[in-house]
Amino acid sequence: MPVLLAPDRAPSLDQLLGIVQKAGLPCSLAPRKEPAPRIQGLGSLLHAGSSELSFLSNQKLKAQLTSTEAAAVILSEADYQSLDFEPTFAVVLCEQPYAMYALLAQWFDEHRLSNLPTGIHPTAIVDPSAVIGEQVTIGAYTVVEAGVQIGKGSRIGAGCSIGAGSVIGEHCLLHARVVLYHQVSMGDRCILHAGAVLGADGFGFAPDPRQAGAWAKISQIGAVQLGNDVEIGANTTVDRGALDNTVIANGVKLDNQIMVGHNVHIGEHTAIAACTGIAGSTHIGERCIIGGAAMFSGHLHITDEVQISGGTAITADIKEPGHYTGVFPFADHQHWQRNAAVLTQLATLRRRLRALERENNNE
Amino acid sequence: MPVLLAPDRAPSLDQLLGIVQKAGLPCSLAPRKEPAPRIQGLGSLLHAGSSELSFLSNQKLKAQLTSTEAAAVILSEADYQSLDFEPTFAVVLCEQPYAMYALLAQWFDEHRLSNLPTGIHPTAIVDPSAVIGEQVTIGAYTVVEAGVQIGKGSRIGAGCSIGAGSVIGEHCLLHARVVLYHQVSMGDRCILHAGAVLGADGFGFAPDPRQAGAWAKISQIGAVQLGNDVEIGANTTVDRGALDNTVIANGVKLDNQIMVGHNVHIGEHTAIAACTGIAGSTHIGERCIIGGAAMFSGHLHITDEVQISGGTAITADIKEPGHYTGVFPFADHQHWQRNAAVLTQLATLRRRLRALERENNNE
Amino acid sequence: MPVLLAPDRAPSLDQLLGIVQKAGLPCSLAPRKEPAPRIQGLGSLLHAGSSELSFLSNQKLKAQLTSTEAAAVILSEADYQSLDFEPTFAVVLCEQPYAMYALLAQWFDEHRLSNLPTGIHPTAIVDPSAVIGEQVTIGAYTVVEAGVQIGKGSRIGAGCSIGAGSVIGEHCLLHARVVLYHQVSMGDRCILHAGAVLGADGFGFAPDPRQAGAWAKISQIGAVQLGNDVEIGANTTVDRGALDNTVIANGVKLDNQIMVGHNVHIGEHTAIAACTGIAGSTHIGERCIIGGAAMFSGHLHITDEVQISGGTAITADIKEPGHYTGVFPFADHQHWQRNAAVLTQLATLRRRLRALERENNNE
Repeated sequence: MPVLLAPDRAPSLDQLLGIVQKAGLPCSLAPRKEPAPRIQGLGSLLHAGSSELSFLSNQKLKAQLTSTEAAAVILSEADYQSLDFEPTFAVVLCEQPYAMYALLAQWFDEHRLSNLPTGIHPTAIVDPSAVIGEQVTIGAYTVVEAGVQIGKGSRIGAGCSIGAGSVIGEHCLLHARVVLYHQVSMGDRCILHAGAVLGADGFGFAPDPRQAGAWAKISQIGAVQLGNDVEIGANTTVDRGALDNTVIANGVKLDNQIMVGHNVHIGEHTAIAACTGIAGSTHIGERCIIGGAAMFSGHLHITDEVQISGGTAITADIKEPGHYTGVFPFADHQHWQRNAAVLTQLATLRRRLRALERENNNE
Repeated sequence: MPVLLAPDRAPSLDQLLGIVQKAGLPCSLAPRKEPAPRIQGLGSLLHAGSSELSFLSNQKLKAQLTSTEAAAVILSEADYQSLDFEPTFAVVLCEQPYAMYALLAQWFDEHRLSNLPTGIHPTAIVDPSAVIGEQVTIGAYTVVEAGVQIGKGSRIGAGCSIGAGSVIGEHCLLHARVVLYHQVSMGDRCILHAGAVLGADGFGFAPDPRQAGAWAKISQIGAVQLGNDVEIGANTTVDRGALDNTVIANGVKLDNQIMVGHNVHIGEHTAIAACTGIAGSTHIGERCIIGGAAMFSGHLHITDEVQISGGTAITADIKEPGHYTGVFPFADHQHWQRNAAVLTQLATLRRRLRALERENNNE
Repeated sequence: MPVLLAPDRAPSLDQLLGIVQKAGLPCSLAPRKEPAPRIQGLGSLLHAGSSELSFLSNQKLKAQLTSTEAAAVILSEADYQSLDFEPTFAVVLCEQPYAMYALLAQWFDEHRLSNLPTGIHPTAIVDPSAVIGEQVTIGAYTVVEAGVQIGKGSRIGAGCSIGAGSVIGEHCLLHARVVLYHQVSMGDRCILHAGAVLGADGFGFAPDPRQAGAWAKISQIGAVQLGNDVEIGANTTVDRGALDNTVIANGVKLDNQIMVGHNVHIGEHTAIAACTGIAGSTHIGERCIIGGAAMFSGHLHITDEVQISGGTAITADIKEPGHYTGVFPFADHQHWQRNAAVLTQLATLRRRLRALERENNNE
């Protein structure tokens, strides 16, 4: 794992245990002669270097304990007791090794983040009418237009463009080169990844009365509204509403390269994997889990707690919670060709089957 | 609808009527005691606030008239006459309420746009050899390379990159962080949304004669050529041609996150919804309507006036206008599993059916 | 072909022949009275102008020789001998016309590139701790954070963001507005197109123990690691690993708008067409060819030398080299409707077939 702290900045293992204990997760150091090592980062059993902390949460990886180079490993008491060799690594005892790893990963990431430069970079262009909270960071070459509000502790990366009247809550994190058009609002603790574009025009056109075959643009004058704790992946786009707003509720997590059309509504805590497209005015419920590269037609209503398999095209309302799928099963190309050929004649096939059934009944 | 003008900048309802009448659409104010209100923006019947103008164009929403908070509502004479209550809102009479809304939405959006800063921002870097027309706006931190031409009235957002020799017509609108590589040209009144990239290298490689299994890059020396009135969505990419140009004709509308491969040709007034991918050298005709997340193989020829359903993979030429579809119908996961399992044996199924038919014939 | 050199900068045809001969490809000029022309660029037979060089490599285009306006055309000896008219163009004889074109396209593109400004633009912000090699170019408004290393001869476009600790090898080319998060590394001769984002957080969440239905973020502390000669298309995203790295091996070519999830591994010389998504921890082998808009579920293992058709969803391991497909065949919409309706009853259809078979057997 190559994201490591410099040796002189690395915490001791004891410090890390203290952080975890403070967060309410019990853990301790198994007795050992050597002093507790300094920990520069976290790593998997397979790849951790000699200054890294690792963990065992998947029993299938237990064999890797004999060869890991990790400085220390988080083990459950049971796994520790079952070791049949004298570990060279320090052993951290914790009944939830994965939870402990997750806490420490968060600590390392926040530690890295908190060491980045803060404040408003001299090259950032902030309109005098913008209201910037305390301890806000704005990166180099970022442009903040008139009437923008940025809540305290928020961090805007380099090269962002924050459109007029947009509102960013507290403790948000916008990575480099995020674009918010005008009047995009979000709550607190949102994370937006690089290249995300919020508030571009929805795709609204009507036949142009002045020229047969041409399109007239319907101006998109709604906005985009994000709740608290929303995460938006890299190069994801969320279009502004045509008239009312496009709404993404609290706790929604969107992966990279997702397209959210105008006037879409995504309910609380729904998570959507990458490359999914949601056409305009579709309403997705709360606590849904949408696989990658799914596709939603427009004007649909998907109820709460729906799971969609990756690659599935949703072309009709879903009224019952449950798991839905619609993927063409792949196969060896020749095998596929044979089946696909029959598929285009399914209606004929059924007619022939009916004919046989009728024949047999008449006999 | 949160994109509102400040009260002191808001037009009176009478002013708005004047704008619509001037555009050739008849409308009038129904008699009323109160003075006509100032209108800060437009809103749907459901969400409009007390300073907003709404409209009724969909009869299904008629019941919302009794509860709307809108300051004024556009109604047809028939709908006005059929009201069975005394409206609190001002009534605007117009036989085409949606067309009137569309005109006013355009007015509000242009009004907002025309209040943005104009001119060339001092941080914009414009090569001395670039030819910049009258009343051109170039945003902060935008870079304009050698030999670029920008026509009068065009507006380039913040943080754009305009490559050497590119040509932008008159009254174009490039939002923030658009990238044009070198030699990308477009006509007049084009709109490009944030994150769009035009002119990146097409995906051209040949087996490398010097190393088995490796790829040698074929330099992509064609260009990208857009007609007039083209709109390109956020994060959409249009690759430069390998040798000849990639061409997007007049009036084409591309939604977000579309991928247009090298040497593709898209005919006039074709509209393509988000997430569609078009592989290299495919030719799409005029006035086609392509649903979202469609996929086109390379080197195809699609005739004019073809409609493709969302999510459809087009893998062969289409010679007849019409509506084409190819989506796997989604279902409850277990139901899908059962059908998908049979699908992989369709050829066998047909064989068995034939066998039965033969048996019956021989009896 | 509109990307042309100015006449006074254009090489003579003799010079171009010298370049090709020096690269090891034999070629010569057929005898002719007129002096060899200057060549401003390359063009197809159909579109080349009178200062351009064209070539014939596809026999289907032979008829275009009679009408081409090209100044010169590359022909094989056999094609030259079979000409039944006196060509107005100069004839270049070469037994591999396409290879000669590819070499010259590369020369023209490198010539263009080598005429761009070099050096570190005064507006580039380079952290003092960054180590910048010789002859490195850094574009306007690019930000280079602490600890970055950039190898000699590499060229970084305008408006890029290079995160802390990232390592860029020698002779790499990053086009405008590329974002590297922290600790992204790449080898030599990599090409990254505009809008590409490497190192954004992988999509890692666990049920939040503190709030039912909500998600807790798993910090993504792995990195991204690219080999040599990797090309990454416009607006493509490659997420950082959760704990270990996301790895893209030597010679891999990724087209535009591809999504590579955390901890994915792509083997050497694999080429992937646009709009493909690869979910987390999937391992794709060496020398694979993946069509556009393909989709890979997570945690899969795809062996070497696998070819996947465009639009195919790969939902299971592939252990044998070969060609795999899984696309629903498109059809006229009504035809599709009829077949899709039967498809949702395939299991029933098979049951009915079995019943008939049993009947016939019992007779």
